[in-house]
Amino acid sequence: MGRYEELTSLSLRKGFLIPSAEIYGGLAGFYEYGHNGARLLRKWENLWIEYFLGLGDDYHLIDTSTVLPYRALEASGHVDLFTDILVYCTKCKEAHRADQLIEAATGTSGEGLDVEQVRSAIRENNIKCQRCGGPLGEPVPFNIMFPLSVGPQGEEKAFLRPETAQGAYLSFRREFEILRKRLPLGLGSVGRVYRNEISPRQGTYRMREFRQAELQIFFNPETFDEELDLEEVKDARLRVVLKDERGGIAEKSVEDLLDGGDLPAFYLYHLAKVQEFYLDLLQVPQDAFRLYELNEAERAFYNQIHFDVQIDMESLGGFREVGGVHYRTAYDLTRHAEHSKERLEVFHGGKRFVPHVLELSFGIDRNIWALLDLDYDIGEKAVLRLPARLSPFTCAVFPLVRRDGLPEVAIRIYRQMRRWFEALYDDSGSIGRRYARMDEIGTPYCLTVDHESLEKEDVTVRERDSTQQVRVSVERLRPTLASLLDGTISFEGLQGGH
Amino acid sequence: MGRYEELTSLSLRKGFLIPSAEIYGGLAGFYEYGHNGARLLRKWENLWIEYFLGLGDDYHLIDTSTVLPYRALEASGHVDLFTDILVYCTKCKEAHRADQLIEAATGTSGEGLDVEQVRSAIRENNIKCQRCGGPLGEPVPFNIMFPLSVGPQGEEKAFLRPETAQGAYLSFRREFEILRKRLPLGLGSVGRVYRNEISPRQGTYRMREFRQAELQIFFNPETFDEELDLEEVKDARLRVVLKDERGGIAEKSVEDLLDGGDLPAFYLYHLAKVQEFYLDLLQVPQDAFRLYELNEAERAFYNQIHFDVQIDMESLGGFREVGGVHYRTAYDLTRHAEHSKERLEVFHGGKRFVPHVLELSFGIDRNIWALLDLDYDIGEKAVLRLPARLSPFTCAVFPLVRRDGLPEVAIRIYRQMRRWFEALYDDSGSIGRRYARMDEIGTPYCLTVDHESLEKEDVTVRERDSTQQVRVSVERLRPTLASLLDGTISFEGLQGGH
Repeated sequence: MGRYEELTSLSLRKGFLIPSAEIYGGLAGFYEYGHNGARLLRKWENLWIEYFLGLGDDYHLIDTSTVLPYRALEASGHVDLFTDILVYCTKCKEAHRADQLIEAATGTSGEGLDVEQVRSAIRENNIKCQRCGGPLGEPVPFNIMFPLSVGPQGEEKAFLRPETAQGAYLSFRREFEILRKRLPLGLGSVGRVYRNEISPRQGTYRMREFRQAELQIFFNPETFDEELDLEEVKDARLRVVLKDERGGIAEKSVEDLLDGGDLPAFYLYHLAKVQEFYLDLLQVPQDAFRLYELNEAERAFYNQIHFDVQIDMESLGGFREVGGVHYRTAYDLTRHAEHSKERLEVFHGGKRFVPHVLELSFGIDRNIWALLDLDYDIGEKAVLRLPARLSPFTCAVFPLVRRDGLPEVAIRIYRQMRRWFEALYDDSGSIGRRYARMDEIGTPYCLTVDHESLEKEDVTVRERDSTQQVRVSVERLRPTLASLLDGTISFEGLQGGH
Repeated sequence: MGRYEELTSLSLRKGFLIPSAEIYGGLAGFYEYGHNGARLLRKWENLWIEYFLGLGDDYHLIDTSTVLPYRALEASGHVDLFTDILVYCTKCKEAHRADQLIEAATGTSGEGLDVEQVRSAIRENNIKCQRCGGPLGEPVPFNIMFPLSVGPQGEEKAFLRPETAQGAYLSFRREFEILRKRLPLGLGSVGRVYRNEISPRQGTYRMREFRQAELQIFFNPETFDEELDLEEVKDARLRVVLKDERGGIAEKSVEDLLDGGDLPAFYLYHLAKVQEFYLDLLQVPQDAFRLYELNEAERAFYNQIHFDVQIDMESLGGFREVGGVHYRTAYDLTRHAEHSKERLEVFHGGKRFVPHVLELSFGIDRNIWALLDLDYDIGEKAVLRLPARLSPFTCAVFPLVRRDGLPEVAIRIYRQMRRWFEALYDDSGSIGRRYARMDEIGTPYCLTVDHESLEKEDVTVRERDSTQQVRVSVERLRPTLASLLDGTISFEGLQGGH
């Protein structure tokens, strides 16, 4: 079984990511979260919110509409430009995404090609239908937004949003006023977005309904560098692939990159913060993480600087994008100001200007998938080594045996724990089998009530990764688990202290 | 200014509920959450999840797709039956919802009427266009789901989901298997749903994109009563309007209602739990809460018992629905089994049967609006008296004056607090003005650093509703606020203990 199949199997058996409407055979490009996945998802989102909105005092979460009017997406450029190039097979009528066809046939990326370039590439490489080998038709641009008609007569043309970012741009003026006209102002959004992908292969990597977590930071380009605490990150060694040094990952300190002069301080600060989120909070191994700079041909024209956040996933054959850091300049607000006829300039630091935007953008489902890929360890036994804070369940409570009053005590402890943590109760099967069940969904702590517990009012706490156990009094369970979760004590420390 | 306008003004000025795409003039029926609203929303959802998924050991959150295939919604009955009756004005072409027209003209509800009945009502009451007085055309049924074409050729017909419930029904079989075939099984969903309302008036009460929190409990009708701890609720006095006693709210104990014999024990248990959520956790005043039973003509045909959860909102002119408790029997799973050809029967308690469903359903935005209505107090001063756990921000930190080193200390405390609570820092304007700002967004605790604080390493904690203050050492701030939030101490207790 390949790695992708291993993860799909885990997902289905344990309720992480599951095809939507499964009993009707699913709907291509749509997946959903079962009960373990939903908890992992919610915890990932909460961690993202805590960390990224914690980057500034005026950084706030907003929750904007998934339906946007035509005019707003015309202004943003999505109506004209949010297209992939589509090629039909003239024989079997299969729809292909041109860049994928070209990449499959030639081994080089077909991204960013226009219709004319696609036509040439197909002709020069004699590319045929991947499905039936038939001749391909004319390439045509295809807008991948889902249109929606609102009102009984469809009188309002709208689209499902293709990204959460636009909600922040549309809200900027009001939030800037409410938040008393300070910059930098951060507006974060976590939510669903929709793209009518031509061929949503690769399972959960390219879906038609997916989730983004995005932070738009609106700033004054003349003062932003000084408003950040660069000292904090200057020694951070960033794992970068620069656009002119594509050989491999280079480790460069923020200080050296700053001296290089190509990347502004505010941008490096945020690259360092993104790396910290991945390496420290999500516990991604160093080797599996890189920040990959796009060159002018690869990045969108409105992005002055663009690094992808990439994680090495065995299931997807290597490094794949899970996020990006985009310096979008004043493009978005300028466009919306022109189209809406509203003033989106601000007065700040003695000048009037349209704020610039730095976007920190993450595909949530890709990140969840990446964690499953990195953390699902099938050695002697199957263990999902998620960071404890992200595990769907924090603890499980077991009676060692189903007699002698142990279940009653275990249930009482379970009900207590459930007030503060995600907890499960399990009394079926051998204790080893119960541990194995918990290991596979990543539960970091199993609390077992044995005969000794009845006298001593304690439980054994077994840690997932070390499989070591330590006895903890029932009274100290809550603070002990809380400290293990927030990292103020380690399990080894707990063993030592005992 | 009427109550509705007061709340709208609060909403816009402070960033609670705001029209979507405001700089483009909005989109009728679409609202979104600004930075205070988004935090209130997220906290309401977390409280709902904690309380309702805590009702059972096998109750879990899932996160399902907002796009559902045609076949699934055909099976559920939505394709055929999820319609309102639409009447156009023949003169000005305005679209009217027939039941609203009839209610406005006659004072009696037009809900549940069919096309023929609407036609008669319009003729008999000589109803004209509300907008221009012109003659009305033929009533026609209008399906209020938003259709979506998926794939480059629109080859997959789908809809945006009109309720979250269907996701749970479609997931039932897989989750039942993963969760080891136990009943009752609860599947909860929190998320957006979409209805193309004919005339989305009443602001945020009837929106085209809105949020639901729904728990579907799948159970064995022969054993469910015994599986619940009825003792726990038997003395609860439910504030009900029974279908045959429409006079006013009656307070009846669960025990008395049980003796009445019309309502099964499992149903009463959940009514009591819903009431507890509103009265205890959301702190809705008794008088503003009722459980309103629908009669056979009013409820959907598949609901054997249906109570609306209603809150008295001044801004909407009286009691309005914010949720419902629906005994749907085996209707949903039976339909999906027939249409999908999959077996949705279970074997439980020695029998094979299709599980019954009890649905606890809540409109999140209506609940948020209801809290604003109940808690926004404009007496001498404007105070949003939200339960402390739901307030967008838990605390604000102020230096008394902007000199003598007070801001530095206050900022340090603010940064500490922000690790554990939603916190704001404010040093602009008089202290009274800063308190007033916090009162209006409902912040329950303001921490002020004064000159005494420098020696004593403490702050004054001022409570929003009493406006009383008490000094608390910086060291004790975290546990003190945590205990105030979870209710283990009261502010009066804190004053006494000082």
